[in-house]
Amino acid sequence: MQPFLDQCRAIVGESHVIVDTGMDAFLTDWRNRFTGSARAVVQPASSDEAAAIGRLCCEFLVPIVPQGGNTGLVLGSVPDARGNAIVLSLTRLNRIREIDVLNNTMTVEAGCLLENVRNAAAEAGLLFPLSLASAGSCTIGGNLSANAGGTAVLRYGNARELCLGLEVVTPQGEIWNGLRGLRKDNTGYDLRDIYIGAEGTLGLITAAVLKLFPQPRTMLTAFAALQTPAAAQRLLAIARKHCDAALTGFELMSDYSLRLVTKHFPQLAMPLPAQHRQYVLLELSDGDSQDHAMAMLEAVIGDAIDEGIVQDAAVASSIAQSRAMWHLREHISLAQAAEGKNIKHDIAVPSSRVADFIEATDALLQQHFPGCRMVTFGHLGDGSLHYNVSAPEGVAPDEFLRQQGAVNRIVHDSVNSFNGSISAEHGIGALKRGEILLYKSDLEIRLMQKIKNALDPLHLMNPGKIL
Amino acid sequence: MQPFLDQCRAIVGESHVIVDTGMDAFLTDWRNRFTGSARAVVQPASSDEAAAIGRLCCEFLVPIVPQGGNTGLVLGSVPDARGNAIVLSLTRLNRIREIDVLNNTMTVEAGCLLENVRNAAAEAGLLFPLSLASAGSCTIGGNLSANAGGTAVLRYGNARELCLGLEVVTPQGEIWNGLRGLRKDNTGYDLRDIYIGAEGTLGLITAAVLKLFPQPRTMLTAFAALQTPAAAQRLLAIARKHCDAALTGFELMSDYSLRLVTKHFPQLAMPLPAQHRQYVLLELSDGDSQDHAMAMLEAVIGDAIDEGIVQDAAVASSIAQSRAMWHLREHISLAQAAEGKNIKHDIAVPSSRVADFIEATDALLQQHFPGCRMVTFGHLGDGSLHYNVSAPEGVAPDEFLRQQGAVNRIVHDSVNSFNGSISAEHGIGALKRGEILLYKSDLEIRLMQKIKNALDPLHLMNPGKIL
Repeated sequence: MQPFLDQCRAIVGESHVIVDTGMDAFLTDWRNRFTGSARAVVQPASSDEAAAIGRLCCEFLVPIVPQGGNTGLVLGSVPDARGNAIVLSLTRLNRIREIDVLNNTMTVEAGCLLENVRNAAAEAGLLFPLSLASAGSCTIGGNLSANAGGTAVLRYGNARELCLGLEVVTPQGEIWNGLRGLRKDNTGYDLRDIYIGAEGTLGLITAAVLKLFPQPRTMLTAFAALQTPAAAQRLLAIARKHCDAALTGFELMSDYSLRLVTKHFPQLAMPLPAQHRQYVLLELSDGDSQDHAMAMLEAVIGDAIDEGIVQDAAVASSIAQSRAMWHLREHISLAQAAEGKNIKHDIAVPSSRVADFIEATDALLQQHFPGCRMVTFGHLGDGSLHYNVSAPEGVAPDEFLRQQGAVNRIVHDSVNSFNGSISAEHGIGALKRGEILLYKSDLEIRLMQKIKNALDPLHLMNPGKIL
Repeated sequence: MQPFLDQCRAIVGESHVIVDTGMDAFLTDWRNRFTGSARAVVQPASSDEAAAIGRLCCEFLVPIVPQGGNTGLVLGSVPDARGNAIVLSLTRLNRIREIDVLNNTMTVEAGCLLENVRNAAAEAGLLFPLSLASAGSCTIGGNLSANAGGTAVLRYGNARELCLGLEVVTPQGEIWNGLRGLRKDNTGYDLRDIYIGAEGTLGLITAAVLKLFPQPRTMLTAFAALQTPAAAQRLLAIARKHCDAALTGFELMSDYSLRLVTKHFPQLAMPLPAQHRQYVLLELSDGDSQDHAMAMLEAVIGDAIDEGIVQDAAVASSIAQSRAMWHLREHISLAQAAEGKNIKHDIAVPSSRVADFIEATDALLQQHFPGCRMVTFGHLGDGSLHYNVSAPEGVAPDEFLRQQGAVNRIVHDSVNSFNGSISAEHGIGALKRGEILLYKSDLEIRLMQKIKNALDPLHLMNPGKIL
């Protein structure tokens, strides 16, 4: 493969073809669960260089594993163990190409950090709403390839809904320029949405036109205590009625989830004095005034207390208090890790069924694994939950993890019976490739294979992922 | 073909296989420009029947032209002249299968009239926002197949953004059940968006899960007079800043467009006393109160008058006045028809470029066709315009129409130079099939062909449309 590597170096420059130990960080996934192998890590600086590498890989039949910030959670951005692929790292394609304030769009390269995209929009007085805990590490190309979700989906949609156009390098090394910043364009098949969420298996996203929004004039955060997920669902309906598009966040957190946080991060305090069974974090974003937002929020909480749904509530009276509430939510994952490994599920059901799902699935798990502890939290407004199962008290986490297959089966079978999704946000990658075969119809798998074969007949793009 | 028709009758019943003159209404397009030919019109009553007809068509190699309300404007829903196809009419699949109020979704069959879908949502206290003049005739399956736009896209998006899941009969006569009402679902390729906007060339949409929204508590309509499209763009920016998601309509109308309306529909009165060069219809939808909406609107108009952008404005003080303002907008197409045929363009450019586009293209047309009259109006908030060209005073419309090719070339070349779309809302159908070849890259056409060949290798679905 020396001629291949030499030609790679001729395209991107000596120092941007990494081999040997320099590759380590690119070969291991974010959660440190798997280390793959590769011929080299290649870092093009432009779409043209990426396309030239693509053509070279076609010629030498070298598989390509596209990689952004490598923050994925399903082994989608690391190579497999065979060692015949290259990792194509997009981080040098990191220019903000254009911000069109009047069109509410920006054109960015795939390797831009999400945080930089958000900051550049803010500097232009606008909002790019995609909001993920990994914003400082993940890239917009990865966000689009994985159709990232996060906490702002309720109001603004997933990454898919935030993108108007793409530039893509095809598996044949051609560049498709679909960088159109149009709200209406019915001139043929929707190629854009084929590449979004395809996890780099159909082509390489190199740039995108993103939708921007007005910055809300004011934001309000509130923390409400409730008894059940069903009460939280009812609170969501009330909040939607009063706030409509102003409701930008609605996160459910079980008491056990938050007790893990305060145990491992004692500097984070609960906003309410007494202990309750469930909590909801509400966020309102208003184009009007602080007073107007507060009046909406008071109407929501007032109705909910009248109906006996909310037992207590606190409204953040400063940005610091608001951040403290969000910190509780954002530290749940870290607290879980500190407590010891658990069995995670990234699932969604229709938001009308969340409470029923939790009740039914909790019961099934208690039946099979008595005493197992549920770390349940997530984006109730989207019907999406992090539904994680920890070992019963006194059982070592590693021992409990041996039950992972059986636990997954119970949870995913239940999700399926609620017409839900076994991967709401994180995608399929290599991790859930076998799992989707259990729940998707043969026809759906065949349709996906037809798309794959049509666009990447040599199967060079991110092999072993999704399909 | 007698055995084929006999088997069709066995599937859908004698009276739902129409031949001879009964077919006429199904063979002629909405604007009466073309009448095709077909073996029969077949009207299944269910997805299963539609799939059975699909399998039969595969066996006998009979092409299928899917048809909903047949209100399309690009000859997408009528068969060609060859006469070897059947028209598959979906109008008997007209059940509202389910409304899930807490999930803000409804599941409907493809043949439901858009108006019935909107009414069913309203009866459940919710809004299905897709808003088209043809709501009483068009079907939701057609809306999705054409990715319909309309006047509410600014706030709610196109038909594509309003759909969460689909049921599709493939060209092989299999049923893909993708009727998931999920806000987050990253389990593989986005098959849904492949079928939406594909104009029935890849499969047959038989049912859909639609997104619903809270009904706004109050709506306000205003009518503003301005000098130029550039002033209208500036007004849009001001309105966005003050209203954000509450801005649900923003329509630009040239004075000439509205003078045609008042000429041919003298019962419709202009809301403002003096004559101005451009007008904007603004609509605000607010979840709060009439007072709150009025305060927002006054802030918008106040700023715009301060900046010297708006010369005069009227706010509708009753539902009747609001309707009267919308009637002006909605009668432009009818007024054009009454005045005599003109050359229509359904185009979009980035909304920041609309004024520049109009100025540049108007100048080019005057240069080549001195005195031609522009009927320019449309959804400025989406950058989408109906940019129509009427004969110069004294020239017979039919004579001017002979210049259609040359006029199209000037307009579409200009659209292309602004990185715009030559079909913003109406699609490609048979009408613009040649036209897109001039403006799309070879690669984009090849990618579309690959998708077509992968999903419909026998090319039985709506032949001659799009590709």
